[in-house]
Amino acid sequence: MSIPDLIKTKRDGGALTDEEIKTFIQAVTNKTIQDCQTGAMLMAIWQKGMNVMETETLTREMMSSGEVMSWPKEWAGRVVDKHSTGGVGDKVSLVLAPALAACGCKVPMISGRGLAHTGGTLDKLESIPGFNIHQSAAQIQRILDSVGCCIVGQTETLVPADRVLYALRDATSTVDSLPLITGSIISKKGAESLSALVLDVKFGKAALYKDLESAKELAQSLVSAGNGLGMRTGAVLSCMDGTIGRCVGNSLEVIESLETLKGNGPEDLMELVTTLGGMLLMMTGSVSDLSEGKKKISEAVIGGAALSKFQAMMEAQGVKEKDAQSLCSTHTDNYSVLRKAEHQIELKTPADGVFLGVDGLILAEVLHKLGAGRSKAGEPVNHSVGAELLVSLGQRVERGVSWLRLHYEDPAPTPDQESRLQNALNLGSTQQHTLVKELLLP
Amino acid sequence: MSIPDLIKTKRDGGALTDEEIKTFIQAVTNKTIQDCQTGAMLMAIWQKGMNVMETETLTREMMSSGEVMSWPKEWAGRVVDKHSTGGVGDKVSLVLAPALAACGCKVPMISGRGLAHTGGTLDKLESIPGFNIHQSAAQIQRILDSVGCCIVGQTETLVPADRVLYALRDATSTVDSLPLITGSIISKKGAESLSALVLDVKFGKAALYKDLESAKELAQSLVSAGNGLGMRTGAVLSCMDGTIGRCVGNSLEVIESLETLKGNGPEDLMELVTTLGGMLLMMTGSVSDLSEGKKKISEAVIGGAALSKFQAMMEAQGVKEKDAQSLCSTHTDNYSVLRKAEHQIELKTPADGVFLGVDGLILAEVLHKLGAGRSKAGEPVNHSVGAELLVSLGQRVERGVSWLRLHYEDPAPTPDQESRLQNALNLGSTQQHTLVKELLLP
Repeated sequence: MSIPDLIKTKRDGGALTDEEIKTFIQAVTNKTIQDCQTGAMLMAIWQKGMNVMETETLTREMMSSGEVMSWPKEWAGRVVDKHSTGGVGDKVSLVLAPALAACGCKVPMISGRGLAHTGGTLDKLESIPGFNIHQSAAQIQRILDSVGCCIVGQTETLVPADRVLYALRDATSTVDSLPLITGSIISKKGAESLSALVLDVKFGKAALYKDLESAKELAQSLVSAGNGLGMRTGAVLSCMDGTIGRCVGNSLEVIESLETLKGNGPEDLMELVTTLGGMLLMMTGSVSDLSEGKKKISEAVIGGAALSKFQAMMEAQGVKEKDAQSLCSTHTDNYSVLRKAEHQIELKTPADGVFLGVDGLILAEVLHKLGAGRSKAGEPVNHSVGAELLVSLGQRVERGVSWLRLHYEDPAPTPDQESRLQNALNLGSTQQHTLVKELLLP
Repeated sequence: MSIPDLIKTKRDGGALTDEEIKTFIQAVTNKTIQDCQTGAMLMAIWQKGMNVMETETLTREMMSSGEVMSWPKEWAGRVVDKHSTGGVGDKVSLVLAPALAACGCKVPMISGRGLAHTGGTLDKLESIPGFNIHQSAAQIQRILDSVGCCIVGQTETLVPADRVLYALRDATSTVDSLPLITGSIISKKGAESLSALVLDVKFGKAALYKDLESAKELAQSLVSAGNGLGMRTGAVLSCMDGTIGRCVGNSLEVIESLETLKGNGPEDLMELVTTLGGMLLMMTGSVSDLSEGKKKISEAVIGGAALSKFQAMMEAQGVKEKDAQSLCSTHTDNYSVLRKAEHQIELKTPADGVFLGVDGLILAEVLHKLGAGRSKAGEPVNHSVGAELLVSLGQRVERGVSWLRLHYEDPAPTPDQESRLQNALNLGSTQQHTLVKELLLP
C-alpha cells in the first residue's frame, strides 16, 4: 500500500479504507510522506470529499497521532468543552467556561489564536497582564481539580498530525473541505477525552459559511464525527451577520466578558452562553431539559458564581491576585489593569432609524488593518485596538448620535476606513433578529 | 497574485491566465513554491484539466524555463525529431534518426531512459560499449554538423521545470493528465528548436492509453501545443498490443535495429519508420506527399545510407571505430561487441495455429522482473536480458515449435513467469493487423 496508490484511490473518487487512512496519517505524523504528496492528497480530498465512515476514521487517526488526555475516574461524565467556528466579537468561551465550572463541570478548554480579523480567545486572554495560556497536561489537570476550568493553547503533544496538515491546508487552498475541517476540529476535542461537546457553528455575512444550509452540513459532519469518537456531541447553528455583544477587539472583549460575568451582559451573548451551556448540562445528564440547563447557566452567571471561577482561573493561570481581584470587583476601573488604546474617536449616525447592527466582516477587516488581528501566524497583535458599539440592537436613534467608539493607536484609521465603517452601519425601521437558528442534538 | 490564489482558481475549475501560468512555472523553476503547493496544483490540474490556450502557455513557459537551443541558419527548415509515447520493443529511433540524417535532415534526438518494463532508447544504446549519451549542447551541434543525427540524454540546462514537475507527478499520482503530459513532452521538443516534429502515439493493451479515442485526444493536444510553439507537428496513432519487431530487451533491440539498417527489418518496424520519417520529410517540404516521403526513407534504410549514418553516430558518441565497424558489417557476430546473456531457453507452442503476436504488456512485465528494466530512476538495467520472437506475425505454426527465446541471467525465470509468457502467446486462425491507424497532420 504505497502513498501514490492512496492518492490515486482518492483522486479517482474512491473511498479509503481504515487501514489506508491510518497509513496516510501515520506518514504525516512521522514525516515519511513527501510534502508534495500531502498537498496532492489534500487537494484530492477537497475535490472528491470523504464519506461519513472515512471522516470518522480520519478524525480518530488524527486524534491518535499524539497524546490523548486522561482524567480522574471521579470526573467521569463531567468533562465538557465547546468549539465555535469563529465570529466577530465572539467572547462566549470567557463566560461559558467559568459558568460551566460553577455548575460542577470540568472544562479543559483548548483554544486557538486568531488569523486575520481580530484575535482569537487566547489573544483576548493575553490582554490580561500575566495570563499564561501555556499549560502542560499535568498543569491543566491541577487547574481543573482546583478551579474546574482553564483556557489554554494547543500543547505540543496533542494531535501533531493536525499541526502539519493545518499549515499545509493553508498553503494549498484546501482549508474549506468538510472532512478536513471536521478532522481538524474534532480530533483536537477528542484528544481532550470529553464526556460532552457542543459546537457553535456560525452562518451569515461574517462567518466562513454564508448560508444556513452549508453551515448545517458542517454541523452534521462535526456532530457525527464527535459522537463517532464516543463524545456526546451537539451543535447550535447561530447567525453571524454582525457582532456578538457590543465590543470587538481583544481587551475590549475581556471587559465585556467581565461585565457579563457581573450580570450586565448583552442579550445576544447571554443567549449564546446559556444555550450552549444548557445543551452541555443536558448532554451530561445533570439537567433533564434545555430550559432547565439554560436557567442553571444563567443563574451561575447572574449570581456571581461564574465570576468567582473566572477570577480563580486567572490566578491559576498566572494573573496576579491583586489584578484578578481588581478586574472582578464591581465599580473597578478595568484600565487600571488592562491597557487602554491611546486614541478614541466616535462615529455619528448619518440619519434617524432603528439600529439593526453592523456588518461584522467589514468591522473586523478594518480592526485587523489597525492592528487588532494578525495576517501571519506568530505576528503580535495590539490588544488595545478595538471598537465598542454605543447603541443596542433594536434601539431607535436620531441622526448625529455617537454609535461606534473606535480605539486605535498606530496606524490611525484612514478616511476611507472611517467611511467603510459608516457604511457598515445598518439602520432600518423594524428589528428582526433571531440569533440561535437551530439545535442539533446527539 | 499569490500561489494559494492560483491553486484556488484551478481547484475551482477556472482557467489560469498566461501571467498566472508563468508565475507558477517560474516558482517551480526557482524553487520558491513549496512542494505541497506544487502537489496540490498538479492534483487540481489533474482533476480540472486545462483548455487549449492554457496547455499551450504551460508548454511555452516550461520550455522557456531553461536553455532553448539555436542552430546555424543554413539548417533552417531541416531540424526534425520524433517522440513516441512508448511501446514494447520500440526501437524506431535507432533506425529513424540515421535514416532522416541520410535524407539531409538534422536530428538532435533527446531521448529518455525506461521506467518499469524494459529500458528506454538510451538504455538500448548504452548496451553498445562506449556509447556516451551525455553530450553538451555544443557537442550535439558538432555531431549534427558532421553526422546529421545524435541520440542523447536530457541535458541539465534544458527545461528544468520539467525535471521538477516530472518527479513530483510520479510521487503524486498525477502522471496521466493530458495537459501535464503535453507540457512535459512538447516543452522538451520545443527547446530543441525543431522545424518539424512527428509523434508516435500508441494505443492498445501494452500502451498507456488502451483505446484509440483517448490516444487520439492526447495526439490532438500534443499536435496543437507543438504547432502553437511554431514547430510543424504531426502525429501517427499506432496500435501497441504486442511488440514492435521481434526483439524486446536492450542489446537484442540494438541487434534488430542493426539488422533493419542492413535491409532485413521486420515489416511492422519498417512501416513505422517509413511512415514517421515520411511525414517529417513532407512537413519539412523536402517531398510533396507521404508516399514519396516513405519511399525516400525506405531507400535510405534498404540502400545502406542510414547504416553509414548510424556507424558515424556511434563513433561520434564514443564507440570505438573497430566496434562500430564490426557491428555495421554484414555477417558479423554481434556478440563479439555486445554482451550475450548467460542463459537462453526456448518456449514451445502448445497447439497448432496462426501466430497473432504476444501480449506485449505481459512480456514486458516478465522481462522487467528479470532485470531488463528498472523500478526506480537511477537503478541499473541488465542490457543482455530480453526475448526474441522466433515466429513471424501471420505465420502458421504447429504444436511444439519454439516460438520465444528468453535471454536471462540472474534471476532465472520462475515456473509462474514461464507460464505467464505461454499465456501471452496469441494463436488464432486468421491474421488481422493494422499497425498505423490514423495520421494527424499539422
